[in-house]
Amino acid sequence: MAKERFEKPTGTQDVLPGAAEKWQAVEEKARDLCRRFNYREIRTPMFEHTELFERGVGETTDIVEGEMYTFKDKGERDLALRPEGTAGVVRAYVQNKLYGEPDVSKLYYMGPMFRYERPQAGRYRQFHQFGVEAFGAVDPAIDAEVISLGYQFCRDLGLAGVRVEINSVGNAPSRAAYRETLLGFLRPMKDTLCADCQRRMERNPLRVLDCKVDQAKFTDAPSILDSLDEECTVHFARVKAHLDAMGVDYSVNTRLVRGLDYYTHTAFEYKAEGIGSIDTVGGGGRYNGLVQEIGGPDQPGIGLGIGLERILLILEHQGIELTKSAPLDVYLVALGEAADTEISKQLFVLRSRGISAERDYLGRKMKAQMKSADRLAARYTAILGEDELQRGEIALKEMATGDQKTVKLEELAEHLKPQA
Amino acid sequence: MAKERFEKPTGTQDVLPGAAEKWQAVEEKARDLCRRFNYREIRTPMFEHTELFERGVGETTDIVEGEMYTFKDKGERDLALRPEGTAGVVRAYVQNKLYGEPDVSKLYYMGPMFRYERPQAGRYRQFHQFGVEAFGAVDPAIDAEVISLGYQFCRDLGLAGVRVEINSVGNAPSRAAYRETLLGFLRPMKDTLCADCQRRMERNPLRVLDCKVDQAKFTDAPSILDSLDEECTVHFARVKAHLDAMGVDYSVNTRLVRGLDYYTHTAFEYKAEGIGSIDTVGGGGRYNGLVQEIGGPDQPGIGLGIGLERILLILEHQGIELTKSAPLDVYLVALGEAADTEISKQLFVLRSRGISAERDYLGRKMKAQMKSADRLAARYTAILGEDELQRGEIALKEMATGDQKTVKLEELAEHLKPQA
Repeated sequence: MAKERFEKPTGTQDVLPGAAEKWQAVEEKARDLCRRFNYREIRTPMFEHTELFERGVGETTDIVEGEMYTFKDKGERDLALRPEGTAGVVRAYVQNKLYGEPDVSKLYYMGPMFRYERPQAGRYRQFHQFGVEAFGAVDPAIDAEVISLGYQFCRDLGLAGVRVEINSVGNAPSRAAYRETLLGFLRPMKDTLCADCQRRMERNPLRVLDCKVDQAKFTDAPSILDSLDEECTVHFARVKAHLDAMGVDYSVNTRLVRGLDYYTHTAFEYKAEGIGSIDTVGGGGRYNGLVQEIGGPDQPGIGLGIGLERILLILEHQGIELTKSAPLDVYLVALGEAADTEISKQLFVLRSRGISAERDYLGRKMKAQMKSADRLAARYTAILGEDELQRGEIALKEMATGDQKTVKLEELAEHLKPQA
Repeated sequence: MAKERFEKPTGTQDVLPGAAEKWQAVEEKARDLCRRFNYREIRTPMFEHTELFERGVGETTDIVEGEMYTFKDKGERDLALRPEGTAGVVRAYVQNKLYGEPDVSKLYYMGPMFRYERPQAGRYRQFHQFGVEAFGAVDPAIDAEVISLGYQFCRDLGLAGVRVEINSVGNAPSRAAYRETLLGFLRPMKDTLCADCQRRMERNPLRVLDCKVDQAKFTDAPSILDSLDEECTVHFARVKAHLDAMGVDYSVNTRLVRGLDYYTHTAFEYKAEGIGSIDTVGGGGRYNGLVQEIGGPDQPGIGLGIGLERILLILEHQGIELTKSAPLDVYLVALGEAADTEISKQLFVLRSRGISAERDYLGRKMKAQMKSADRLAARYTAILGEDELQRGEIALKEMATGDQKTVKLEELAEHLKPQA
């Protein structure tokens, strides 16, 4: 009787061999990038107390309003799978008192996040982000550093059409002033706006400007930059001066406010040549009140997050192949039971000396084994028959040239040294 | 008013900079090992349908009986955070029809698992495993390959006192015969056994032999090897012959049955010189019925799992340092605002050319900046004043030798080439 089959949960994906190597390549690029920019890795748990996200992400956001995977553990604690990376990193920064260290805390993270969203192309309920957070500095130079890090990441990946959009959402007084100016502009058109916009308008009018539906109606909206006070204006000017010096390809987009409640000053997004409207690969911003909001000292912060599914989608769209599949060094073929055991020994010796090696485990005939060696793009095949075994030798063939020779078993590794 | 502080959930941990590099090093060792053994990565979701684990791990195990993090998603699906790695990989192997490929499917995984256990030293509710699974082959050579892979992993890490314990738990008829023999031995002592053993005795007497409390009473227990039929005996003999040929340091432990229900034939565990009784780093076994049990074709499998927290604990206990912290290539110091912007440019240029570079973001005086460069073990410091800037030069100092020179700004990268 056939048993029931199981399927992966809706909205999740399996990353199979072939795809997994692409993930590894992107992750290695991110790690090397962070080494050069002097950001160090932090790993926080996959779940946190639900209240952390309510406080740290913002209760009026879509995420906290309806997209979190929440559950109670057996101790009746309210927990949630992390819907984004910043809240957990801020919590760890505070709980582990990293603010006590003399230098700026420059941290990066990489891993799964979880949101219960409607599944669609390139959107998963378990998705993956690479992000950095820098705590402790208000210097506009670090805003520019964080922006340039994401920009350089896209360049390291070889993405075409990479550019940055930046804006300043100011400090609290500047934003309060802008809120009134913006409401003055929006209220007369309220009835013409979509339901989401109408709902958001009084609670968080800045986010109305994010709306995809009503975008065209906001062409003449007042600019937040006109509401910035002296401090905010100077900060933004210095960020731009640093970006100009670096040669980062950016433009100012005064309607960029990002979806999260806690941003202050600099906000930014990365664009690359994508598939229609799917061109944003990530973004970030400064959040000077967040550390205090979740119980820490008054320390400023700035960070970015980049969606790895989105990066992989755009890499594929642009025809960029990051992985060169490593060929197998040698495929070993045994003829007879004594040779079979000797092949196990040779495999183990070669592998323990850094050489990649494979054999057959399906009792296949030599011809099928050779096909297997071909599929693995083996550089060499080595065949051990009873006669060779008695002489302590093995027949070695270089696949690219067809050259064949007989070598001593104990010298096999020497002949197979990995290519430089 | 001070806000409430948040803590990480009980039983989880933050991996901070300093520790994270150790995790990276262990993971890199595992990836390189899998390259040599020709295992390829698979990534499955952090959660699955709860029933998958009930079926795939076994309903009578401690894990499924009380340690799973279960929850309903907003679509009322019963889901569980994965308590181990094998069930998800088997599900993905079946769902993605990997059994249709001509070669043996040799897969590895690495990542978080979740069990609601009582927190104790080295045990976490979110823990991390590295594991491999090989599907499609009954050849005893692959049992030996999997065993040798975990053994070589421990050797690559430099662990002392690495050895393997192996056993055969036979096929279903052999195990049924042994069950009766074992019950004949256990029943007379039932009243002297611990509560757990008494409970397990009738449902799964083999697992009684696993008991830590009553271990001493089982010295004279009958050996499962005496109940093996011809097929099982031959298979086990061949596994040992391959291990002998490889030179793997193993011994037969007839009481080794492992905690999971689905093992057949070969079972094994790895030991290293540890802290008292904390000496097991992982184990695995063959599970020929599991693929069918969860709805796939009749394909055999064998795998291993290694606990990374345990590996890190034993590495530390044995005083093994895997990471050599990479020194920073250069620390840049700016004197004045024009130099400050130029330093941003130089930083970005150096970093985009593979050089690790850092600067100050806290407006500190030069002396404090030099201390920061020391903490980062910078190979060079470079100081840019207004005079040098006007001449297009920068003062460069090699920290190890104290050598100082003035170089052209556009040639700075040339002078800082990373060490080979």
